[in-house]
Amino acid sequence: MKQKVVIVGGGFGGLAAAKALASAPVDVVLIDKQNHHLFQPLLYQVATAALSPADIAWPIRRILRYQPNAKILMAEVTAVDTASKMVIIGDKSESYDYLILASGASRAYFGHDEWAEHAPGLNQIVDATDIRRRILVAFEQAEIESDPSARVNLLTIVIVGGGPTGVEMAGAISELARKALAADFRRIDPRTARVILVEAGPCLLPSFPEPLSDYTKRALGKLGVEIRLGSPVTHCDARGVRLGDEEIMAKTIIWAAGVAASSAADWLQAEKDQAGRVIVGSCLEVRGLENVFVVGDTARYEDADKQPLPGVAAVAKQQGTFVGELIAARVQSKPEPKLFKYSDVGQLATIGRRAAVVDLGWIQLKGRLAWWFWGIVHIYFLINLRSRLMVAIDWFWSYLTFDRGARLIT
Amino acid sequence: MKQKVVIVGGGFGGLAAAKALASAPVDVVLIDKQNHHLFQPLLYQVATAALSPADIAWPIRRILRYQPNAKILMAEVTAVDTASKMVIIGDKSESYDYLILASGASRAYFGHDEWAEHAPGLNQIVDATDIRRRILVAFEQAEIESDPSARVNLLTIVIVGGGPTGVEMAGAISELARKALAADFRRIDPRTARVILVEAGPCLLPSFPEPLSDYTKRALGKLGVEIRLGSPVTHCDARGVRLGDEEIMAKTIIWAAGVAASSAADWLQAEKDQAGRVIVGSCLEVRGLENVFVVGDTARYEDADKQPLPGVAAVAKQQGTFVGELIAARVQSKPEPKLFKYSDVGQLATIGRRAAVVDLGWIQLKGRLAWWFWGIVHIYFLINLRSRLMVAIDWFWSYLTFDRGARLIT
Repeated sequence: MKQKVVIVGGGFGGLAAAKALASAPVDVVLIDKQNHHLFQPLLYQVATAALSPADIAWPIRRILRYQPNAKILMAEVTAVDTASKMVIIGDKSESYDYLILASGASRAYFGHDEWAEHAPGLNQIVDATDIRRRILVAFEQAEIESDPSARVNLLTIVIVGGGPTGVEMAGAISELARKALAADFRRIDPRTARVILVEAGPCLLPSFPEPLSDYTKRALGKLGVEIRLGSPVTHCDARGVRLGDEEIMAKTIIWAAGVAASSAADWLQAEKDQAGRVIVGSCLEVRGLENVFVVGDTARYEDADKQPLPGVAAVAKQQGTFVGELIAARVQSKPEPKLFKYSDVGQLATIGRRAAVVDLGWIQLKGRLAWWFWGIVHIYFLINLRSRLMVAIDWFWSYLTFDRGARLIT
Repeated sequence: MKQKVVIVGGGFGGLAAAKALASAPVDVVLIDKQNHHLFQPLLYQVATAALSPADIAWPIRRILRYQPNAKILMAEVTAVDTASKMVIIGDKSESYDYLILASGASRAYFGHDEWAEHAPGLNQIVDATDIRRRILVAFEQAEIESDPSARVNLLTIVIVGGGPTGVEMAGAISELARKALAADFRRIDPRTARVILVEAGPCLLPSFPEPLSDYTKRALGKLGVEIRLGSPVTHCDARGVRLGDEEIMAKTIIWAAGVAASSAADWLQAEKDQAGRVIVGSCLEVRGLENVFVVGDTARYEDADKQPLPGVAAVAKQQGTFVGELIAARVQSKPEPKLFKYSDVGQLATIGRRAAVVDLGWIQLKGRLAWWFWGIVHIYFLINLRSRLMVAIDWFWSYLTFDRGARLIT
């Protein structure tokens, strides 16, 4: 009887773990509430009508088709019983010998979950098509609206959070309004839309070196984005956002701030940090539990300097692979790796047409070269040839025509 | 002051009418509740995970970007006040001098609207992604289900209606199960899925010549579709369908039978036929109303033999163009066309890989040649180069790999 590895989550971490177990003598069961693996770094392009959902999402069971030891279950995990080693899925359950939780994270509203309704975040495909709908509908309603001040509110879009997602959203929305939509309306001028990027801290892209952060601010400004630094949001509702005493009336608010980990820590009743991430040991194991591991955005792993690793795809992938290989070694009684070490591959963010920032540690790029680098890297990491072709054509089309391929309200 | 033409509906008819008025000295206002024009002949491919919504839908205002006399309003018409010549849009209204109603049709449940919830029809993008979700979720649930008879129900799909949409859905679903999904599951074998096509009448594709209808039946049979002719549906619910005394347990039912016109006749309080279509005169005008026209699926126009025209794209397009040109002539006091005459362009339907039927009147094709003809014609009629490339790549990809590009559950 083979030992059974249950993986919860089919994101970068979970998928990497499953693949690392491909030739191990185990049964792998991967559970995800979605049927698809999502290439989250490009999700903002679905939200801004540049790409179709199917270009950046693929059925998990299709990806693992040729891995016979992997079973996929589309189901929502509701609890974990660590005593009897069972993952609970509603009224069903899956027993495990090894457990890998890779259940990700979503946005944190800093104790104001009631803001979520007015300021949606970007996590899943449905979030992206919902945000796309909100943005496009606002322009449509403005075209019908006869009251000038109501029209201004409809054409005001606030993005909260100056990290990569916020920067990318702000640039893409500004270009959408100023280029793709500009000629399509008769009563309003979409170029008058206000796109406001709000950040509580003192700079954009705080994890990047200062010159790149400064460049980002200037480049976004050239695209017409208004930037408010040092401006924590104190309230959100249907009318807009409040920054301290100032109220900005805005029909559309997009939340790209804060991180709230999945419920993994609660399932395990494990020690967690402020963001709800499970605090893991040097091999990503959960202290006090045998053969239970947590990887990716829902894990808090501190490197030698006691710094937590960032919640990016590269960390999740490397952690998934590490744990997969560790379990493969353990079941075969081979020597196990002793310490997870993140190999930093750098970070990058796009701002708009021909503008991006790239920090590879040994080199920093900005502007046009960084933009091409960003595009090539992202196409390279898409999962199959079809998606690469589709995304390449969509980008090339947008580049030539300034148009967006997926301006659908559904 | 220019005269104002209001067009309700941005489908094939409404769009053709707007384009025919491009150089006329009128203001055109096109109202649609969707922001996009939809290429409905390929909608079944979105429902069966082959294409993405954005490949077959384009913003109406993008299509008419370079027609300066056209304004687009995304809004839902709730009534027409023919006395004061106003189209009512909720609490707003648009006055008109000329009115063209091109508001289309949906599926008819023969007085059993309660069936709609269990047996959705295929009209809009959301219907297609809903049906896609239902089909894919059924396979996912079957993979988890341990009860064999429940599993059989989950893997039974009934399509009601043997016209082109029903035939195309049945073929595409059968190929989805037998090819694209076949290798991706571990506990179930998707090839055992039952796909049942139910038709009340004595043959499939009743509008086609008998040899093509017979060929369609054989070709679908080879794809593994079970065909029930002369089997009117007498009941639908969450458990399945009833055909006379026989009950077929099925998790998924898709409705592709019957036609119910839009509310155009009620808005105008005009004479209508059984399907709710407005009975129009020889120039598609509504009797008793000045400068009001109805075109496409929501109009009943009888040719010289007193036969109503079919509800297909070609009819709607030709009617839209006819009315647009008639109004252009009338406002300029030029000679008007006196009689709409449909120029029959033939009909075609695809069955599956390398199988289709084409009836052009002077020639009939079936099989592989018809399939290529069908594909080329459909790509040709897509609205722009980007969509043609996208659809061509998706089809080529599916042809080579038997895979489907958009297997997303959202």
